Amino acid sequence: MTDQMTSKQAQASAHDDTVNGIHLETLQGTVRAIEQDPVLGQCKFRARNTWLGGNHNRSTISGFYGARQEIAHKQQFELHADEPPILAGGDDGANPVEHLLNALAACVTTSMVAHAAVRGIHIEELESELEGDIDLRGFLGLADDVPKGFTEIRINFRVKADVHNLERLKRLTAYSPVLNTITRGANVIIQVEPK
Amino acid sequence: MTDQMTSKQAQASAHDDTVNGIHLETLQGTVRAIEQDPVLGQCKFRARNTWLGGNHNRSTISGFYGARQEIAHKQQFELHADEPPILAGGDDGANPVEHLLNALAACVTTSMVAHAAVRGIHIEELESELEGDIDLRGFLGLADDVPKGFTEIRINFRVKADVHNLERLKRLTAYSPVLNTITRGANVIIQVEPK
Repeated sequence: MTDQMTSKQAQASAHDDTVNGIHLETLQGTVRAIEQDPVLGQCKFRARNTWLGGNHNRSTISGFYGARQEIAHKQQFELHADEPPILAGGDDGANPVEHLLNALAACVTTSMVAHAAVRGIHIEELESELEGDIDLRGFLGLADDVPKGFTEIRINFRVKADVHNLERLKRLTAYSPVLNTITRGANVIIQVEPK
Repeated sequence: MTDQMTSKQAQASAHDDTVNGIHLETLQGTVRAIEQDPVLGQCKFRARNTWLGGNHNRSTISGFYGARQEIAHKQQFELHADEPPILAGGDDGANPVEHLLNALAACVTTSMVAHAAVRGIHIEELESELEGDIDLRGFLGLADDVPKGFTEIRINFRVKADVHNLERLKRLTAYSPVLNTITRGANVIIQVEPK
C-alpha cells in the first residue's frame, strides 16, 4: 500500500495544511477513520427524479449515507435534463448523455486534484474538454448491432503545473469512481411499480 | 426491425400529434432522416470543465455535433460539482457520483417516455429513486481489491399509467444510452497536456 492517501509523501505534505485548495487534515482524517474502521467507507449515494413532461425531467439530490450515518448536503441540488429540438425537446437542460460527460469531467478532475494534493503535487490551473461518440441508430432502435451508449469518450486536460508531474497526474485519474464505473461497468437493477 | 420508432404502432399513434408531451412528427422526422441516411445519426456530445479550486469544478455545455452539423443549445448550461465537508469540499454542488446518478435517472426516464410515446403508451406521472453503492476504500487507495466505482445501482420507478403496460415500460429502459454506457462500459481516452 504505497500509493494511497496516507502515504509518507502525504504525511509530509500535511504540514502545508492546504494544497490545491484541499484541507489535507480534513481529508486525511476521513482516510484514517476508514482505514481503522473499513465499514465507514461504505456509501450509498442517491438521487430522486421527477418527470416534468416530454423529454424534460428534474433530479433532486439532498443527501447520502456514509460513515455509518445519513449525511445531508448543506443545500438541496436540482438538476434539469431535456433534449434539443432535433430530438423533440425544449432544450431546457443539458441532455442525459451530456450530464454523463459532466459527471465524468467532474470526477476525473476531483480525483486528480485530491490525489495530487496528498502527494504534494501543486496544480495551478486545470481545465478539460470532453467529447464522446454516440450513433443515435442504437437509441432509436434502427439497428440492433449499433451500441446504444457511448462507444468512446476522449478527455483532454490542460494543466498548469510542474511539467515533470504531468505523467503522474495522468495516472492519478485512475482513482476516479465515475471513470471506473464507465470503463468497468456496474450492475443496474430497475424496478417499475404502479403509482 | 419490429421494435423501433417507426413501427406500425408508431405510425398509427402519430395521428395523435403529441403523446407524453412529445411531438411525434418532430421525433419521427428525425428517425426517418437517419433511417434514410445513417450518417446523420453519428453524434459527438461535448462538455468543457474548469477547476475552480479544491473539489469544486464547473462544466459548461453549449452544443454538439449531429445530423452532419454543429448544433448549438439555445442556452449554455453550467453544472457545478463539489464534495461534502466529510470529503474536504465546500458542498457547492452535487458530487460527481451523484451527477452520474442524475445522468442515469434522466436518460432512463427520457428513453422510457419517448419510446412509450411512439408506441402509443400514455404515461400520466413518472418518478424514480436511485441508490448506488460505493466503498470509498477504492477511491482512497486503501485497498487494491475494492472497486473504485459503483458496484450496484438500483432504480425504482413509480409510474401512473395502465398497469398492463408496466412490464413493457420496464423493457423500454433498455434503449437508454447512459444505462448502456454504465452496464456495458465505454472506452475512455485521457490526455494530459501542459497549459
